[in-house]
Amino acid sequence: MRADGRRPEALRLLEIEPDFLEQPHGSALISCGKTRVLCTASIDEGVPRWLHGSGRGWLTAEYSLLPASTGQRTQREASTGKQKGRTVEIQRLIGRALRPVTDLGALGERTLWVDCDVLQADGGTRCAAISGAYVAARRALDRFGLGRTLTDSVGAVSAGIVAGEALLDLDYLEDSAAEVDINVVMAGDGRLIEVQATAERAPLTRAQLDELLDLTAHGIEEIERAQAAAVEAVRA
Amino acid sequence: MRADGRRPEALRLLEIEPDFLEQPHGSALISCGKTRVLCTASIDEGVPRWLHGSGRGWLTAEYSLLPASTGQRTQREASTGKQKGRTVEIQRLIGRALRPVTDLGALGERTLWVDCDVLQADGGTRCAAISGAYVAARRALDRFGLGRTLTDSVGAVSAGIVAGEALLDLDYLEDSAAEVDINVVMAGDGRLIEVQATAERAPLTRAQLDELLDLTAHGIEEIERAQAAAVEAVRA
Amino acid sequence: MRADGRRPEALRLLEIEPDFLEQPHGSALISCGKTRVLCTASIDEGVPRWLHGSGRGWLTAEYSLLPASTGQRTQREASTGKQKGRTVEIQRLIGRALRPVTDLGALGERTLWVDCDVLQADGGTRCAAISGAYVAARRALDRFGLGRTLTDSVGAVSAGIVAGEALLDLDYLEDSAAEVDINVVMAGDGRLIEVQATAERAPLTRAQLDELLDLTAHGIEEIERAQAAAVEAVRA
Amino acid sequence: MRADGRRPEALRLLEIEPDFLEQPHGSALISCGKTRVLCTASIDEGVPRWLHGSGRGWLTAEYSLLPASTGQRTQREASTGKQKGRTVEIQRLIGRALRPVTDLGALGERTLWVDCDVLQADGGTRCAAISGAYVAARRALDRFGLGRTLTDSVGAVSAGIVAGEALLDLDYLEDSAAEVDINVVMAGDGRLIEVQATAERAPLTRAQLDELLDLTAHGIEEIERAQAAAVEAVRA
Amino acid sequence: MRADGRRPEALRLLEIEPDFLEQPHGSALISCGKTRVLCTASIDEGVPRWLHGSGRGWLTAEYSLLPASTGQRTQREASTGKQKGRTVEIQRLIGRALRPVTDLGALGERTLWVDCDVLQADGGTRCAAISGAYVAARRALDRFGLGRTLTDSVGAVSAGIVAGEALLDLDYLEDSAAEVDINVVMAGDGRLIEVQATAERAPLTRAQLDELLDLTAHGIEEIERAQAAAVEAVRA
Amino acid sequence: MRADGRRPEALRLLEIEPDFLEQPHGSALISCGKTRVLCTASIDEGVPRWLHGSGRGWLTAEYSLLPASTGQRTQREASTGKQKGRTVEIQRLIGRALRPVTDLGALGERTLWVDCDVLQADGGTRCAAISGAYVAARRALDRFGLGRTLTDSVGAVSAGIVAGEALLDLDYLEDSAAEVDINVVMAGDGRLIEVQATAERAPLTRAQLDELLDLTAHGIEEIERAQAAAVEAVRA
Repeated sequence: MRADGRRPEALRLLEIEPDFLEQPHGSALISCGKTRVLCTASIDEGVPRWLHGSGRGWLTAEYSLLPASTGQRTQREASTGKQKGRTVEIQRLIGRALRPVTDLGALGERTLWVDCDVLQADGGTRCAAISGAYVAARRALDRFGLGRTLTDSVGAVSAGIVAGEALLDLDYLEDSAAEVDINVVMAGDGRLIEVQATAERAPLTRAQLDELLDLTAHGIEEIERAQAAAVEAVRA
Repeated sequence: MRADGRRPEALRLLEIEPDFLEQPHGSALISCGKTRVLCTASIDEGVPRWLHGSGRGWLTAEYSLLPASTGQRTQREASTGKQKGRTVEIQRLIGRALRPVTDLGALGERTLWVDCDVLQADGGTRCAAISGAYVAARRALDRFGLGRTLTDSVGAVSAGIVAGEALLDLDYLEDSAAEVDINVVMAGDGRLIEVQATAERAPLTRAQLDELLDLTAHGIEEIERAQAAAVEAVRA
Repeated sequence: MRADGRRPEALRLLEIEPDFLEQPHGSALISCGKTRVLCTASIDEGVPRWLHGSGRGWLTAEYSLLPASTGQRTQREASTGKQKGRTVEIQRLIGRALRPVTDLGALGERTLWVDCDVLQADGGTRCAAISGAYVAARRALDRFGLGRTLTDSVGAVSAGIVAGEALLDLDYLEDSAAEVDINVVMAGDGRLIEVQATAERAPLTRAQLDELLDLTAHGIEEIERAQAAAVEAVRA
Repeated sequence: MRADGRRPEALRLLEIEPDFLEQPHGSALISCGKTRVLCTASIDEGVPRWLHGSGRGWLTAEYSLLPASTGQRTQREASTGKQKGRTVEIQRLIGRALRPVTDLGALGERTLWVDCDVLQADGGTRCAAISGAYVAARRALDRFGLGRTLTDSVGAVSAGIVAGEALLDLDYLEDSAAEVDINVVMAGDGRLIEVQATAERAPLTRAQLDELLDLTAHGIEEIERAQAAAVEAVRA
Repeated sequence: MRADGRRPEALRLLEIEPDFLEQPHGSALISCGKTRVLCTASIDEGVPRWLHGSGRGWLTAEYSLLPASTGQRTQREASTGKQKGRTVEIQRLIGRALRPVTDLGALGERTLWVDCDVLQADGGTRCAAISGAYVAARRALDRFGLGRTLTDSVGAVSAGIVAGEALLDLDYLEDSAAEVDINVVMAGDGRLIEVQATAERAPLTRAQLDELLDLTAHGIEEIERAQAAAVEAVRA
Repeated sequence: MRADGRRPEALRLLEIEPDFLEQPHGSALISCGKTRVLCTASIDEGVPRWLHGSGRGWLTAEYSLLPASTGQRTQREASTGKQKGRTVEIQRLIGRALRPVTDLGALGERTLWVDCDVLQADGGTRCAAISGAYVAARRALDRFGLGRTLTDSVGAVSAGIVAGEALLDLDYLEDSAAEVDINVVMAGDGRLIEVQATAERAPLTRAQLDELLDLTAHGIEEIERAQAAAVEAVRA
């Protein structure tokens, strides 16, 4: 049994509050246990220079930890003047997660900005960000009548091997103790968008990789049902 | 009558949600109409080098607009690598607002970090940040048994002259149209901590300044009642 | 009696040397006691992008302390790669001080750059910068036949409460000891452009604020006479 | 058949020139087809502050593209003042690739710097960098009598699905056309250190992932034989 | 005859005002024609880390153009966040010019900061900066009873070939038209500290180089007489 | 006799490997003893804004030390975010060295980028960079049919006075011990492009300067023969 009483294959308590804000084109506050990420989506007219006249749009994502999100305060990147390597890596991942389900031709010459700001961090922030970002983007595009830009939904979750056991949706303490961790991004049709498996302490076997892939596939199905319900609720 | 039906001397709908997050030492989500600011307070052991061995603490404040808070998305400062002049000016103001009611000797050799992140901006964000920061700081210090560090409460509000009429607590559209605007920070005992009056379009007379000072004094009394109620609610 | 023998309501020795340099369009070296600020004004053809085609000009101000101006050498901001918060705050203030008396339509699509470089700092540098900047700007605009761009003169001075007494035009030692300080910017017609009152050590009462406002109003009248004399001298 | 006549499961021509330079503690020039990466390893006494007194060492990696390595010249990051997201992501990957086979206790309080500078880029630079970095690190550690710090060898290779076919060790043109690409880092014992599968154009199935994993496993075995031969040659 | 009526081998009107400021440890305002440079010298206790405990001091120089010094306003480097290559090159030259006549052992573990801020630029600013810096440094060291730190005086001047003729001490227009230019730094004993000859438009012969070296030697002798007179005047 | 057995007037072993890489337009790996510099030349269509429509091209040079080139690892400038003063100074020198033999009109509206990356540093890197850059530029321009852009060849070498003796082509240990050092850039016709003589420890006499100029003239003649041979070899 895990510290919070979860079974190995169970997600943390998942809540998605769509339209958490009124001014951004789309927004969602996603909570995965104590991890809380505010995701917004903004649609700007215009695209970067190299797409001028192409008829195609662009999608870009940014990620940030609020300084106090981590309990022990983290320095504000705007104040140090530099995004940390981890930040850069995560925001590139969020962009790659959404692009394969985004029809940039349907978007037209517009830029879809996705911002994921972590209000509270307790492990799994990059996956929560991706799952929330999909809802925010969906809401923004729906409002602009550009709903068909998103060709499928996207969800993400982490898993890891902790003390020899495969666990789904690690919280911070589990993540710190994991020998291996994996982040998986999956489309609504069950196909994989990104797999990142990392040997934190020791290399892993193909069999372990397979077990973790199975575990996350089930988790993401559940996340995608919650996403659909959230979108449905505010559309109604 | 104002666009939202308020009388000239009325505040916007004010809500303060203390302990909005669980991990930061103190937190409050303050809403002034559509303006929403997440304020957190973090207490770190240690002080900047020039205070080593002094037995005294330090207080520092940071402020940020989330990119999508402004509707029309603003560039993320962590990404441009530089805080804007407006940001720097506001975070210095927040620090100055809290220091006169902070007994740095009672804090001991600790640093109190105050972070004000604007989730949604509709005018008056610097004043909302100060009013919320007081509640977050109060909560963090109470938790650490350092409550006597704060010797009084602090509230802030803006006012301005719009089309010749003095109005309290401007929203974004009013602020954009104001000839003159003022931001006032006041301690719980009614004394002034900071007055910043700015001629946006034309200079102002002493009589106009006096009228705006009266208006804000009443507004801040009301804000300080809401702060006290919020703190009381979670202490209970 | 003050350290330099001044009465509480007396300015320091004030000297304004207009046209201190030959190459900038306008320049003035202002000395307020030991504080000496070199102010220049430059008129560039062209405006920032958002004003293209508007027929209106732009005014922007920059401020800097030369490294050795402070006695104990200060790091050069060009070398650290970052302007300090205090610098940013002051240069924004200088810009706001001049804009309400600047008719940007009369300027046409030009940018008026105001640079204030502190050669020696002994308190009151931001106010000296504003008072000197007016003279430099006036000289530059006169030379270009754009004199009507400035609709009035502008002067500024500080005051503060030191050991319970209200004093005008603080030098560095007085400023360091002040409980409260105020910077006031006033137009030639006696109306207020900016009031910044700050409780350095303890909050202040409305009565104290009023006393400081009175003190500075008299001081600025005297400064504006010196500005007029300086401009007259070189015009002749 | 591929443009250069290779079979789908064939590596490009692989050459590893150990001790390419005389001054760095360890070095290797690795060529994978036209991709050429100069890898060096430097051992510094001392560790970052948080490891002082721990008896443990630290390993850190940096990566760079020389400006002309890409044919069409790329801006030099030292000159723009900012490492690109791609650079940051790759150098973090190189560090993660080597750490699971590095016994930081055996290293003692030393820092092992690994630098991978791409002299010529034709796809697969991050994998070539990892494979070459192992040889450079091995050489530097051997010279310092710290050989047991590396507990195993590490190799890496890419693969992808191009026009529906799984291909090993993509060159630049193949990489640009790939629907899916994968980078795999494997230890000498055949276990996985990092798997990064990315849907560049469309999501992938588990079956496709499995096929790519098989392909890379064979490729890395061959790379590890070349690494061993290179190390052996200069040791003799 | 030159535009200002000078003979080819004549310096511009040279004025050195020592002790131009009261607060810096040493200062001098040097004017070479319209070029005016404010030089200050500051003595700080302490040295960079690598000299701790060595008993030796350090000398470092910084240089800057005030934005309006150039007539056509130049961007402020503190504002762009980056010193230009030209600035870096010049401040390194100033440091090299003074170090060969500085006995760092006699200075003790102190840092001598030399700041050269160009108030008005009309050619020859680097040479004027060096000549003025010597006077400022001499004044600062004398005040601290460290006069023997400077073992000789230093002066500098430029020359160039313009329309085939060798001219001393070029102003901006002459400098812009020069085929070749040279900057020479010479100690009081007539030996050379630095020679920088640059072919601006075409390579130069050894004979031309010799002619320029002769011309500058005479110029620097005259500059060194003016330096001595300036130092004498304020010492008296 | 020098440590490596050379006579005072002898160059180190000089090797120039033209076309070291296949993708850059031009490249050369130059070795002067243990100093090894990879030089590349890239021709981009287009020029900086101020040359648009002028019919003339632009040449710009960049220089870098690879971190491990110095044995004791140097920080990577891309990672510190700032080029060091020494780097800036050297790359400006490389540009000035090539421009007097470059006919920018013959180049047309193109930019010639010269990159010099030091793989291994053992003294004289800036001179090696210039000598190698000429070969790389020559190769790139020949390939584009723009060979007449280079009107002459350029070579460079250092010399210095070590323990009272004039030595050619200093290695790192000699350079560290030199009282005086000089870098000379010479065109193929024997005329001087740049002379930089620096008193590292003590000023130098005109006679010493003359001796060093003679020594370098002979050295550069030899370098220029090696350049010609290298270019000839690959042209054939």
